[in-house]
This record gives sequence, structure tokens and C-alpha cells, in this order.
Amino acid sequence: MDTDKIKARINQLEQRDFHDMYLNDFLLTWEKSDGEVQATFLVAEILRDLRQNNISSRIFDSGLGISLFRDQSTRTRFSFASACNLLGLEVQDLDEGKSQVAHGETVRETANMISFMADVIGIRDDMYIGKGNAYMREVSEAVKQGFQEEVLEQRPTLVNLQCDIDHPTQSMSDMLHLINTFGGVENLAGKKIAMTWAYSPSYGKPLSVPQGIIGLMTRFGMEVVLAHPAGYEVMPAVEEVAGRNAASGGGSFIKTNSMDEAFAGAHIVYPKSWAPFAAMEKRTELYGKGDQEGISALEKELLAQNAQHKDWECTEKLMGLTHEAGALYMHCLPADITGVSCSEGEVEASVFDRYRVPMYMEASYKPYIIAAMILLSKVKSPADILNHLLTSGAQRIRD
Amino acid sequence: MDTDKIKARINQLEQRDFHDMYLNDFLLTWEKSDGEVQATFLVAEILRDLRQNNISSRIFDSGLGISLFRDQSTRTRFSFASACNLLGLEVQDLDEGKSQVAHGETVRETANMISFMADVIGIRDDMYIGKGNAYMREVSEAVKQGFQEEVLEQRPTLVNLQCDIDHPTQSMSDMLHLINTFGGVENLAGKKIAMTWAYSPSYGKPLSVPQGIIGLMTRFGMEVVLAHPAGYEVMPAVEEVAGRNAASGGGSFIKTNSMDEAFAGAHIVYPKSWAPFAAMEKRTELYGKGDQEGISALEKELLAQNAQHKDWECTEKLMGLTHEAGALYMHCLPADITGVSCSEGEVEASVFDRYRVPMYMEASYKPYIIAAMILLSKVKSPADILNHLLTSGAQRIRD
Amino acid sequence: MDTDKIKARINQLEQRDFHDMYLNDFLLTWEKSDGEVQATFLVAEILRDLRQNNISSRIFDSGLGISLFRDQSTRTRFSFASACNLLGLEVQDLDEGKSQVAHGETVRETANMISFMADVIGIRDDMYIGKGNAYMREVSEAVKQGFQEEVLEQRPTLVNLQCDIDHPTQSMSDMLHLINTFGGVENLAGKKIAMTWAYSPSYGKPLSVPQGIIGLMTRFGMEVVLAHPAGYEVMPAVEEVAGRNAASGGGSFIKTNSMDEAFAGAHIVYPKSWAPFAAMEKRTELYGKGDQEGISALEKELLAQNAQHKDWECTEKLMGLTHEAGALYMHCLPADITGVSCSEGEVEASVFDRYRVPMYMEASYKPYIIAAMILLSKVKSPADILNHLLTSGAQRIRD
Repeated sequence: MDTDKIKARINQLEQRDFHDMYLNDFLLTWEKSDGEVQATFLVAEILRDLRQNNISSRIFDSGLGISLFRDQSTRTRFSFASACNLLGLEVQDLDEGKSQVAHGETVRETANMISFMADVIGIRDDMYIGKGNAYMREVSEAVKQGFQEEVLEQRPTLVNLQCDIDHPTQSMSDMLHLINTFGGVENLAGKKIAMTWAYSPSYGKPLSVPQGIIGLMTRFGMEVVLAHPAGYEVMPAVEEVAGRNAASGGGSFIKTNSMDEAFAGAHIVYPKSWAPFAAMEKRTELYGKGDQEGISALEKELLAQNAQHKDWECTEKLMGLTHEAGALYMHCLPADITGVSCSEGEVEASVFDRYRVPMYMEASYKPYIIAAMILLSKVKSPADILNHLLTSGAQRIRD
Repeated sequence: MDTDKIKARINQLEQRDFHDMYLNDFLLTWEKSDGEVQATFLVAEILRDLRQNNISSRIFDSGLGISLFRDQSTRTRFSFASACNLLGLEVQDLDEGKSQVAHGETVRETANMISFMADVIGIRDDMYIGKGNAYMREVSEAVKQGFQEEVLEQRPTLVNLQCDIDHPTQSMSDMLHLINTFGGVENLAGKKIAMTWAYSPSYGKPLSVPQGIIGLMTRFGMEVVLAHPAGYEVMPAVEEVAGRNAASGGGSFIKTNSMDEAFAGAHIVYPKSWAPFAAMEKRTELYGKGDQEGISALEKELLAQNAQHKDWECTEKLMGLTHEAGALYMHCLPADITGVSCSEGEVEASVFDRYRVPMYMEASYKPYIIAAMILLSKVKSPADILNHLLTSGAQRIRD
Repeated sequence: MDTDKIKARINQLEQRDFHDMYLNDFLLTWEKSDGEVQATFLVAEILRDLRQNNISSRIFDSGLGISLFRDQSTRTRFSFASACNLLGLEVQDLDEGKSQVAHGETVRETANMISFMADVIGIRDDMYIGKGNAYMREVSEAVKQGFQEEVLEQRPTLVNLQCDIDHPTQSMSDMLHLINTFGGVENLAGKKIAMTWAYSPSYGKPLSVPQGIIGLMTRFGMEVVLAHPAGYEVMPAVEEVAGRNAASGGGSFIKTNSMDEAFAGAHIVYPKSWAPFAAMEKRTELYGKGDQEGISALEKELLAQNAQHKDWECTEKLMGLTHEAGALYMHCLPADITGVSCSEGEVEASVFDRYRVPMYMEASYKPYIIAAMILLSKVKSPADILNHLLTSGAQRIRD
């Protein structure tokens, strides 16, 4: 039993300032203070410790976690379900096919109608620029108001499971993976991370991963390089966030159109396809107008544009340019692996294979990150509760 | 902690006679005695009190609540899931798409096969006249027999989540909303409620809401007026129930074809679209024969018929006719709001907006009403159990 | 309270050798020792006893049971959900429609991504010869490796909910039904069971039921007869298993092309349609090539072949040939009942009706069999845990 380790982490938690997280949403990492980000990492680690020691983390005796996925998802869906289950919440999916949501109901009405016993709402809505995060804020306002009006007996807090702007549960899991890989957050200062575009035969992958990475990693004194072919720019507003973070955090944020330059001397590389921000804006407009012809034309155009950049592949040769030719390769999965899932893709199979176990570890943090976000938003004194769970020692599996 | 208030309600519960509810279904409100109806309200309120005081209402350590929706639903689905979760049951949906139900299995067989660990079955089947309630009774008979034959170790009880005849979880929630709005059931005697038809651009809305309302509200000494254009009659059998209730309960049940007359001096108005009973009977027949052409023709005919009654809209002007021009507006949601969800609909936007919070409150009772129905059917001594929950005081969220 | 009976069964359990079941899958009954099979029956019975006595069997405080159905299912889906719920696990469906599984992810990756908090994975994959069981082993290897690599904190164990080779949760439930019907496993030696083909107007029913039956029932000294028209052979490998079992267990395994011969003097009959093994192999090949025309042609051919054997129906006349004209009729359900679910089918309505209650009982064991498989794979000292549940006596429903 790692009681001392867990107690030490709870002590660390007590020293952080994160009181604003209580009864609050987790929508963008850059809306959270350093103390809040660190508290989230600590609680995630403590919940993992407890589970590893077969100690129950149930803080809810009953309650619902509502999931609302407007885009397909396996891993995020299971991560949210796992997080809810770990804390004692039952997941109820708002499947828009099964429900009447599509039939002209207002967001406010639906948000309240599903929330009478909802403690948390997880939303994934990443397809349309300017829509996803806005939708989350609309839902959040609706249930906040419902709580104030005493329609709801509790304020359901929101967890952003991926929007058009940020993917906080992904970037936070990625960051926790780095912290553990490099032996502590203090060892990340000065490390170079290359967040680069990569070729994919599919089109329209969301921007939220690269945006989430540059918006978060710049806070820890890292040298963050964003690389992509000309025309694959991300949202300017997030670039500004990254710049500000770097300036205040002692790191740097640099943009380049050269994958080689990004990889040179990098300690960490994160090559991944995404769609150009401007194109995604255009697509959103076309959808708004219901212009199917325009959408098809845009799709063709984007695939052709992608095809001009097949050389943006994470090869062994490129990996050779990195720090001691041994950078940590990261991916949010699933990846387009050359010769495996497609004929030409984001990464050479040998590179991908070599980092399979670390990538699975990277993914394994997500349920705990989500659970930590939930716990910190629903419990007034997290350290006390975690201490109580530890000392009472109720088993997860009876043995 | 509202311990005294809760204890007082449990004391009231002890004085009611509701012993027939144990191991029994909740299918039609008019099959339940006054004591049983009042016990349901009391238990719903106590469960809400407990939750507001962060006290666990788990009476099940394990067990399934089966939901079987033969029509789309968001709010009733979530209400059932919330009710089950509050009591400790896990919901398992019998999705006819995913299952083999459609493949010629008999109702009896399926009902037993899904019920080995089912404590409660919630069914929504409101589309076809003469079918929904009959189907529920068929399922109920099947599992009752299964229990007698020792195939099932418990008798799963049924909750009618809306059928062709009644919508008891809706009408009971509506009633509890009235009780709380008017400060007690004793204040409802002599109050006038106008259950009126209203224009909707869609067609074929179920009759179970108006039928449920006239079948329940007539029991409490209220002056119930049912208003609709000629040709929009509801089931004669339910009108008879309403008449009998009014006669024995000291209230009245009046029919009219004038919305003005219904609204005049009303304390409560409930304007809502529905389809004519006779047309729904015809549709059921056509479905039985698989006559798609006949169905399309009927649909056209019904929409044309509806369009002749666009003046049946709940306007500010009509609201001005009500008692002190301030009747309580009710709706089971979602409503067809003129200029919001459709160009011409059931209600003017300003009326709807003014009553948004009360309507959300109205809806908020449903999970507790369903939970009360479940608890009263599964527990022999509800008052003792509720007292035990109160005094042991296990927390819903650990704090 | 049947405390003594339950204690006696726990004592019996303590005398069995089943230590290999811990952290292991349940894929084929013939991979399990006699001690393991008997332990599964005992635990299933004890879990049923506990539930009948309103004693909680929750051994998990949190945790997920993943279900992955590649074929439609009502009863197995509900049985798995019931089993998980009984033990305290929450079911999470991996619905390939909702998820990204179909989008080129490797089995290994998906298996790990859904398993971070998965204690058990139930898979049904029975459609393609040579694929279903192989897929289960691939998933099993993936999560075993994930556990060794410390990506997963627990090893999720697998339960075969039906594959191309075996249907262990069905055959074990069937067997437990026999044990209880005949008053003990010791009374089964020398009993004749006729596992026979029967005519069905549909085509392509899985082979796993007859294969599961001959692979399991031959272990208990029974006289197992497999009967089908020429051309409806099952997998040769499973026939070999049946032969070996019979040889070592003191029973017999005989094949015949005569339904009369199989029924003559039988104590138990199990007439059920299936598709010829060779045809299923061909179909699998055609699917592999995406040859839709070939598949349609094969379907036609198979239906025509079936139609030549409409005389393979379980009639009253045939039942008259059985032991004392009173053999126990079995079916895994749903059955094709002549004049009920089809015009000509597997069984005469009067035969089916007479055995309805026993067949429902037969089905009722499945949730407990699955729960037993899960418990034995997740708990190191099952007898101790069961004793603890019994003596602590926490209630399933508070009363």
C-alpha cells in the first residue's frame, strides 16, 4: 500500500489554490490558473493511486453523468464513462437520434429537462468553427440559470470533451504523460516540443488537438514549435494565447513551415493531421446555408491540398533529427500509419510501433483527468474527501 | 436539515391506505384510490426532500430498471433513468433495433427473458389506439405469471410512461405542481382548469395528455373544462371517467367547443395540440392493414383539418380572460411556440416565456413521481424505509 | 433463510480445484477442467441462492463490464447486463455504429483504449467461421499484454457470449437446467440426449449451440446423439472433442441422419436449426471477397436445401418415441414454432407450449452462469468472498 505517497500528494494538493473550480465548468485550459491545472493533475494521480491500491473512489451514492457526443468517439466516450463510474455516477447518453432534441427544442429547455439529477455534463462538439464551445457555454448558462431558479437542485458542471477551440481532457492527459515521462513538471522547462501537421488521406480533422497543445504546453516553460505547411494555420486567437503563455511562463512559442526545423533537437514530437482553420470556417458557413454542392467542392479541394504535403510524414529519418535522435513521439490516437491503416499517412509504421506502449500510457491518463475535473467541480474540500477515501479504505473489488 | 418537515410528511404517509400498490403496476390514475394517489405525491415529495438534504435514497443495492420506448422521448427517458438511479437501479434499454424483439418473438417470451433481474419495467407506447395500454397489460400478465411459475425471482412491476389512454407520470407531475403552486391540495377545490386543444403545424400528437388531465384533475373538486374544436373529441371512455370523478369528488367536468369559454375565469390553462380520437383509431386500422397510401391520405386530411383551427392559440388576449388575467399556464413540453419553433403554433412567445420557470418546475417533479411509483410498488413498508433513510442519513454526495 | 444450504454449497466449492480460472478467460468449455466447470455451476447456484434470500452479491464498488455484440441479441445482452449489475459492474456497450472501431483501428489499440477501467469484456461474434473465437483471442492477448505493460491496471477477462465454435454461457445454462431437472449431476450418467437439427424457414443460424452441447454434455457420462440431415455437418474439430469427452467420461457420442433414431428412448431432446458448417465456411469466404452476388446465390441455395427437410420437426409423434414418451424438450430460444412464429418450423406448438415453463427456467440460469464466470475470474478466493457476502448479509432491496 502506497499510503505515504498518496498522503504526500494530498498534502501537495492542499497547498494549491483552486477554489474557483468548485461548481464551475472545465472548458478551456487557459481559463484555468496554474494552481487549478496542477490541482487537476494531482487529483488525477491520487485517483489513480487509490485505484491501484484497490481503494474505492466513490463520492457519489447516486447521480447521473450526461454525455452528449455530436461526433463519433470511442476513447473519449469510454474515458468519460470510466471517470463517472469511478466516482459513482451513472452515465446517461443524450443520443440525438433517440431523443427529440432535433425536433426544434431550444438548447435551454433540453439542457434543463435532462439535468434534474445530472451532476455533470460532458459534451463533444468539435465539427464546426465558432459553434462547439459556444454551444457548451449556452448549455452551461442554461443549467446555471436553472439552478438559480431552483428548477435544478444542483448545478451540473460541464466538462469539454472536445470542441472547436480546445480539447482539454486530451491536452491535460498529454501533459500528465510528459510530467511522468520526464520525472516531474520541473523537468519540462526548456524542453522543446514540436506540434506539427502531418499528412492524412482523410480530411477535416479537428483543430482542437494542436490548439489544445500550444495553449497548454506553453505554460510550463517549454519551447513550443508549431509547424505546418502554409495554409494550415490554426485559430489566430489560440496562437495569441500560446504567445502570451510563453512570454509569462519563461518558455517560447515559435511557428514554422518546416517539419525539419520543428523536429531539430526536439525532445518531444506530436505530428498529427488537421484541417486549415480558414477552410473549416468556410465549411461551417456552407453547412449553415445547407450548400451541399459547396461542401463537396470544398472537400475535394481540401483533399487535393492535403495531397501536396505527403512529405509531412513522421519518418525515422526525421526522428533522427531530434534530441539525441530519441524524442518522445506522441499521438492522441487513432493515427494514420503508413502501410497499416492507409498507404501514406502521418507516421512510419516503425516509429509508431516503437512508441506504442508510451502512447497507450498517454491515453490511459484521460479517465483520471476527467474524473479529477469532475471531482474538483463537485466537492468543496477535495483534499479532505480524498483523505477520507484513503483512510476509510473501502475496497474497489472485495478480496 | 429539514428533518422535521420530512418526518411530518412520513407521518402523513403512515395515515394513508395504499397497501394495494405493493407488487402492483401503475397503469391508469383512475385505477388508484385517493389514498394511493396521495401516497404517491407524499413519497415523491419526501424523496425530493431527502435529495435536497443530500441524503441517499438508495433502496436497491443491485437490480435493473428496464425501459421500453416505442416512441421517441427525451424527457420521459431521462426522468425514468433519474428515478431508477435515485433508488439504486441500473437502467437497461430494450432497444427494439438492437434486439430480436421484432423477429417474431411473442410478448410473453420476451417479457420473461429480459426480466430475470428486472425490478421495474417502464413502457412508453402511445402511438396506436387500443394497443399501448393493452400491450402493457400483456407484459404485466407475462411477468406476473413468470413470477408465479418461479421463472422470475421477483415480480417486476410496470410503470406506464405514456400509453394511448393515460400518461400518469405526466398528469401526476402536473398535479403535484398545482398542489405546490396553490399551497396544498385543499386549495384546489373550486379552481377552474381549462384543458384545451391548441393548433400545431404537426399532426398526430397523442391524446394521453388531455385524457390524463381530465381523468385526474376531476378528482380534487376542480372545475375541469375540456375545450376543442368539433371533431377533436378524446376517448369517450375517459370522458366518462372524468364525469364520474367530478360527480363523486364535488367538482365539475364540462365540455365546450369554445376556447374563450374555457379560458373565461380559469385559474389554470393547459392549451395543447392533440389528434382526434376517431382519426387515431382510423390510423391504427390503416397501420394494421399496412395501407401506406391510406395513412398518407389521412395525414394530409388531418393537417388540413388542423389548419382550419389556427385561431386556437394561447394568446395574451385569451390569457386576459382568465381569473384576474393571471391563470397559471401549463404545458408538458415541448410546445409549438409561435415565431420560435414554428410560424404559427400553440402559444404566443410572450405567454410561453412568462411561464418558463413554472413549466420547468412542472417538469422537475416527474423523476420523483416515477421514483415514488417504483418505491411504493417494491417496498412493503415505505414509511419505515423512508424513516430509515432519513435517520441513517447516508450522503448522496460525500462532503 | 437457506443459510445451511448455501453454506453447504460453499463447502462443496472449497473442495473443487479451479485456481486456473483466476485472471483467465472463459472461451470454450472444453478448455476448462471438470473442477472448473463444477465450480462455475456451484457459484451460479450460490449467487442465485443469495439473491433469492435478498442478500447482496456486490463484489465491485465500481468497474466496467464491456459488451461487444457483433450480432443482434436480446437475451444474451440482458443476461450479461444482469450478471454485471448483480456483481456491481456497470455495462458499457461498444456499439460499433457509435464508435470509431470501424474506421481502421487495430483490434489491439481499441481493446486497450476501452479497457482502462474494464474488469470484464463480453463478446458475441458468431457470424463467420474461423473469425469469432479468433477475434476473442486477439482481444484477450491485447489486454493481457496491456496489463503486463502496465497500460492497464487490471487484466480484463473475457467471457465468450457466443462465437463460431462454442456458446459456453448457453451450454452451461442448459447443463445446469439438466442438473436441477434430474436432481443432480450424478443422475445424468446414462441419460440419452438428442441434439438434433430441425427445419427453419430462415437460414444461417449459428452452429455454436449444437457444438456447445455436444462439446459439454459428453463430459458427464451422457449418451449424446447428434442428428441432422446429410450435409448439415458441424465443425469436425468439435465432433472430435465430443468423441474424446465421451471416451474419457464413460458416455457415448453417436451421429445419425435419422431424427427418429435420435429421439428413440431419449431422456432429453434439443431440436434446433443450424446452417451447414461447409456453407458457413463458404459464406465467410464470400464476405471476405465482398462477393454480394455470391452471398445471395448461397442464401437461395441454403433456403432450398433447408426446404427439403421440412420433416425435421419436433412433433408430438416424435416425442412419443422418447423415454416413457416424456423426454425433456429444450431450446435456447427463440424457436420457430409451427403455426405461431412461422407456418412450418422447428417444433409443433403443442410440444413447445407444454415445455414453456421448463424452457424459461433453462434461460433463467444464464445471468447466474455469466456472473459465476466473472466472479471466478476476478476473485482470488471465491469461497471466502461468498461466505463473507452470506454472513455480512447486506440486503439487495432494503426492507
